[in-house]
Amino acid sequence: MLEVAIIGASGYTGGELLRFLDVHSEVEVVAATSRQYADTPIRKVHPHLHDLDLKFSNKSPSDLDVDLAFTATPHGASMNIVPELVEKGVKVVDLSGDYRFDDIDIYEKWYGLKHTNPLEAVYGLPEMYRDKIKGADLVANPGCYVTGAILAGIPLVKEGLVDTIIADSKSGVSGAGINPTPATHYPNIGDNVVPYAVTNHRHMPEIQEKLAKYGDVRVSFTPHLVPVIRGIITTLHCFPLKDVTPNDVLEMYKEQYKDEPFVRVLDVGEIPRTSSVRGSNFCHIGCFEMDENGRLVVISAIDNLVKGASGVAIHNMNLMCGFPETMTLDGVGLHP
Amino acid sequence: MLEVAIIGASGYTGGELLRFLDVHSEVEVVAATSRQYADTPIRKVHPHLHDLDLKFSNKSPSDLDVDLAFTATPHGASMNIVPELVEKGVKVVDLSGDYRFDDIDIYEKWYGLKHTNPLEAVYGLPEMYRDKIKGADLVANPGCYVTGAILAGIPLVKEGLVDTIIADSKSGVSGAGINPTPATHYPNIGDNVVPYAVTNHRHMPEIQEKLAKYGDVRVSFTPHLVPVIRGIITTLHCFPLKDVTPNDVLEMYKEQYKDEPFVRVLDVGEIPRTSSVRGSNFCHIGCFEMDENGRLVVISAIDNLVKGASGVAIHNMNLMCGFPETMTLDGVGLHP
Amino acid sequence: MLEVAIIGASGYTGGELLRFLDVHSEVEVVAATSRQYADTPIRKVHPHLHDLDLKFSNKSPSDLDVDLAFTATPHGASMNIVPELVEKGVKVVDLSGDYRFDDIDIYEKWYGLKHTNPLEAVYGLPEMYRDKIKGADLVANPGCYVTGAILAGIPLVKEGLVDTIIADSKSGVSGAGINPTPATHYPNIGDNVVPYAVTNHRHMPEIQEKLAKYGDVRVSFTPHLVPVIRGIITTLHCFPLKDVTPNDVLEMYKEQYKDEPFVRVLDVGEIPRTSSVRGSNFCHIGCFEMDENGRLVVISAIDNLVKGASGVAIHNMNLMCGFPETMTLDGVGLHP
Amino acid sequence: MLEVAIIGASGYTGGELLRFLDVHSEVEVVAATSRQYADTPIRKVHPHLHDLDLKFSNKSPSDLDVDLAFTATPHGASMNIVPELVEKGVKVVDLSGDYRFDDIDIYEKWYGLKHTNPLEAVYGLPEMYRDKIKGADLVANPGCYVTGAILAGIPLVKEGLVDTIIADSKSGVSGAGINPTPATHYPNIGDNVVPYAVTNHRHMPEIQEKLAKYGDVRVSFTPHLVPVIRGIITTLHCFPLKDVTPNDVLEMYKEQYKDEPFVRVLDVGEIPRTSSVRGSNFCHIGCFEMDENGRLVVISAIDNLVKGASGVAIHNMNLMCGFPETMTLDGVGLHP
Repeated sequence: MLEVAIIGASGYTGGELLRFLDVHSEVEVVAATSRQYADTPIRKVHPHLHDLDLKFSNKSPSDLDVDLAFTATPHGASMNIVPELVEKGVKVVDLSGDYRFDDIDIYEKWYGLKHTNPLEAVYGLPEMYRDKIKGADLVANPGCYVTGAILAGIPLVKEGLVDTIIADSKSGVSGAGINPTPATHYPNIGDNVVPYAVTNHRHMPEIQEKLAKYGDVRVSFTPHLVPVIRGIITTLHCFPLKDVTPNDVLEMYKEQYKDEPFVRVLDVGEIPRTSSVRGSNFCHIGCFEMDENGRLVVISAIDNLVKGASGVAIHNMNLMCGFPETMTLDGVGLHP
Repeated sequence: MLEVAIIGASGYTGGELLRFLDVHSEVEVVAATSRQYADTPIRKVHPHLHDLDLKFSNKSPSDLDVDLAFTATPHGASMNIVPELVEKGVKVVDLSGDYRFDDIDIYEKWYGLKHTNPLEAVYGLPEMYRDKIKGADLVANPGCYVTGAILAGIPLVKEGLVDTIIADSKSGVSGAGINPTPATHYPNIGDNVVPYAVTNHRHMPEIQEKLAKYGDVRVSFTPHLVPVIRGIITTLHCFPLKDVTPNDVLEMYKEQYKDEPFVRVLDVGEIPRTSSVRGSNFCHIGCFEMDENGRLVVISAIDNLVKGASGVAIHNMNLMCGFPETMTLDGVGLHP
Repeated sequence: MLEVAIIGASGYTGGELLRFLDVHSEVEVVAATSRQYADTPIRKVHPHLHDLDLKFSNKSPSDLDVDLAFTATPHGASMNIVPELVEKGVKVVDLSGDYRFDDIDIYEKWYGLKHTNPLEAVYGLPEMYRDKIKGADLVANPGCYVTGAILAGIPLVKEGLVDTIIADSKSGVSGAGINPTPATHYPNIGDNVVPYAVTNHRHMPEIQEKLAKYGDVRVSFTPHLVPVIRGIITTLHCFPLKDVTPNDVLEMYKEQYKDEPFVRVLDVGEIPRTSSVRGSNFCHIGCFEMDENGRLVVISAIDNLVKGASGVAIHNMNLMCGFPETMTLDGVGLHP
Repeated sequence: MLEVAIIGASGYTGGELLRFLDVHSEVEVVAATSRQYADTPIRKVHPHLHDLDLKFSNKSPSDLDVDLAFTATPHGASMNIVPELVEKGVKVVDLSGDYRFDDIDIYEKWYGLKHTNPLEAVYGLPEMYRDKIKGADLVANPGCYVTGAILAGIPLVKEGLVDTIIADSKSGVSGAGINPTPATHYPNIGDNVVPYAVTNHRHMPEIQEKLAKYGDVRVSFTPHLVPVIRGIITTLHCFPLKDVTPNDVLEMYKEQYKDEPFVRVLDVGEIPRTSSVRGSNFCHIGCFEMDENGRLVVISAIDNLVKGASGVAIHNMNLMCGFPETMTLDGVGLHP
């Protein structure tokens, strides 16, 4: 059994890691840390995990004797924890933004932090870097919007079809985390649509850096908060530079993702919607349509807490540890 | 492998049966019938079941050669299908109201139908009739509100603690089924609370008949529709006839349900909420509190589509067929 | 023009007071105080009040030279502000719980506070105390749940029809105020139903004290939070001690409220729902039905921020100052 | 008093027309027609209009003797009603799509109907055609998405700043009307985001035709349904052809709309959100931001039932009849 720790387990991503890992037959969660809730039973914070016989602990990373750790810690905190873990041979999947960027300057600019402990890390999107992840000691889990945008965008860039992409995202509120704020207060976001960070969200440079691995492209991104708990719809708008039909595009996507266990390319008439992937690790991509102006639309749907965070983190663990990729992650969405 | 048919598979209960049965290792779904959607791939109606390689069929019950059938057919339709199935040796779990009542007069009065084909059936609430279900050929699945109210009420009645119970329920909209109506139209029920059938809901006589198996009691019931997809909170209000403390009551419940795989009695400070059981077959019961007037409160939470419909149907199948009880049903709720 | 101050204007009740008073032809709001937002334009906090050319001020009550003040201050804070205002001749409508109770012991027990400045106040429910309010200098605005429960209960108690009432309420989240908490965090309450304070909510003794003015009765109360922004549905369950028909009860209510400008007694077939009164000062009461057990149901619907708080506060002001009762308050609900 | 009829008054736009006209001091609604609900009191269908002492009538247009009629009839039905009304001297505001287009071929192509009764009509967006509307006998009310997109786009096109606009809209469900469908069924759209008609919505050619009055531009449009009752957020993405700063753009908008009674240009730091305009006739426009790629974002918020339908219809009536423009329409949004 792989012994695993979740560092920062009291948030929503911690809860989702616990939900999946508790029934993973190759893994035992030996520590779930939380300073705030030390010695509190998990179920007081995550009420759906009623039978989980585990308490939050206040162990520091140096006291953790585990095979692998998920660091579900805030941006800026991970960089103070991860190096020590890696050094003593613990494999790490980091869910923060600290190790996502090749270019540290971009990180420092967009996160407003000095990066004190840069390390070599593999970017943890299996559809991009499956093989590298298999051999990695440190994997940097992608941002939630980033996963939805990249998976929808890869074939477009790879085939040289576009040089400009506009990604317009609609996100559920759980993406903001478990801590209440005015923006997440029910009366403020219930029955409402609220754009935010319309030209300066931190996930924009991450989408840009990763999609540019596939070709020259500039990506513009705008997120909106909608009264949904989980899920991100990312609508890509672009003007193909080559002469293609919607069907050509559909075929490109089918080819690109034909062996991917968690990406589903939808046929004509099928609509990506967040409920189809609610609670699951699947990404649905569809709506390959063009209008009279030559604009092409491609839309992806993911659950931001699963495919956008904890699910892909476990997918990465499965790859790093040689387990079957889909282990514990093969459940379908909860619709309705 | 047990060969199973789902008759009337295009509704929400059909979708949930398919979601659970598709990963049940002892079962193969060989037919999912729907007149409206004959020859349509399942995923066109249940978009989360994307990988299910099955189409709706238009087979009539007489053409079905299966070991067990779930009849997810409307009230009044089941009675025309079930007898033929039972006669030719197919085990049946009926999800309609047609076979729930001991007293056919009550059925006919409350459903406004003549019952043309009465049959001996076991009432399919495992917490009541586990042993009888094991040997049954025909099991009548309980109504969704009924399950929430009975599980919350059994210990009160069994111990002779009360002679009157008021059950005030708040239900998600999926309980109304997959067919759109003005009551389920988003602008009419979003951001709204709507009482309905406040003294004459069909589930009231069913709660009454079943709880009365445990002792003399009269039950009054009022449901409300709330802007929630899945889930029922049932708040029982009663005035104990005996001198008890909240803790006595809590202990009664713990004793009653200590071996039940799907009922969880919550400790002081834990609150039943629908999100804790969303998508799962669990029932949470809690809030054993008394006020200065001697009123006792007990509250249950279930997912109406799972513990209130398709989950308990599969639980019944597991019992009828000798499979482990919790097979395919052990997933926890999806919170948040 | 009546010069008015709103003390504590940055909350939801402050916003609603401003929305109604801004178009009240006899009133000028000369100060809207907020320590947190001093010198900030109102619209930064209440974005719908875009054209309101007013800033929050940090004036202390002693610096306010106004005719009337609304104290939308927290429980425990009002008692430190109100006496000074009253003493210098400012009429006051207090929206906190500090002056609601005849019996200070009850206040101190349920609010966990020592009351340092008791004063004579009129309880501000116009349907109870219209005439006293007209001559009052200090009016204590009722709790939101209390208004819904009392209006639904008065005729029952007054006619000696019942000695016990169970009030089961379902409330929108704005009742919890503008400050974010885990309970009001969208992912925690969206798509959810959460009972709370099931036998010990502070509004219970207030309902009890006020309804008992009409006759002997004991009231039990349980609130639930539902994913709604505004609105409270209060379902009264009771067993009439006299022989009455539902129609008798309906007629009692019609008689009781026939001259009330803001209470509407619904006919058979009309359903109280929160959307019917959303944003308005109306209270709808309906569902006068009885079941086979002799249980009677009566259900009220109000907007907790209007009839349950700011609307009735302005109604009280209109009465205190001799304005037409319905002035600025006659708008209907926003449905859908 | 202007005598007015609402033809097709049982839908949501009919309800909103009645809500505003009932308190319009220059107007009397003498007929509200509905075939389905003839002789039914209005409040049975529009429960918030409880005090409205009016029944639906089944009068045919030829029997209506009124000064002005609102035809809130479906596309294709209006063209059979409007000409007769106009001929006999009734002023008409038509809320359908039948008279919106200059180019009938476009109408016929996108609506799939033969237009049997073309007539000269003024396009009823006051911010475009105020003077023409004043003298018009027939005004064609704009589509809801169109209003949000045009108001956000006019300055961009008029100043020659762009030749391409992508409009990504998020709409509340009431835009789909009062008739229930699978798309509007609560369990299907609650907690969900659903793109639809991603490249072929009927409002696209209308946006295109109207914006092109201001300059050469091609507009691409994609709508999404979100779990909101009322409101549309339209996010415009474009790449300015000239060198401008966000502040330049903000100033252009302030200049364009400085005298408009219902358009508010938001300052830096203010965010358009649907709740700010909920139930009101205001349009908020804001978020004039640019990213590193030179993409400019402009976002508008309207209530689709008011500024997007019934409010602007009354605005048009006020202009056609010489009433003050803002009469009955000056209420602010209902937030929260």
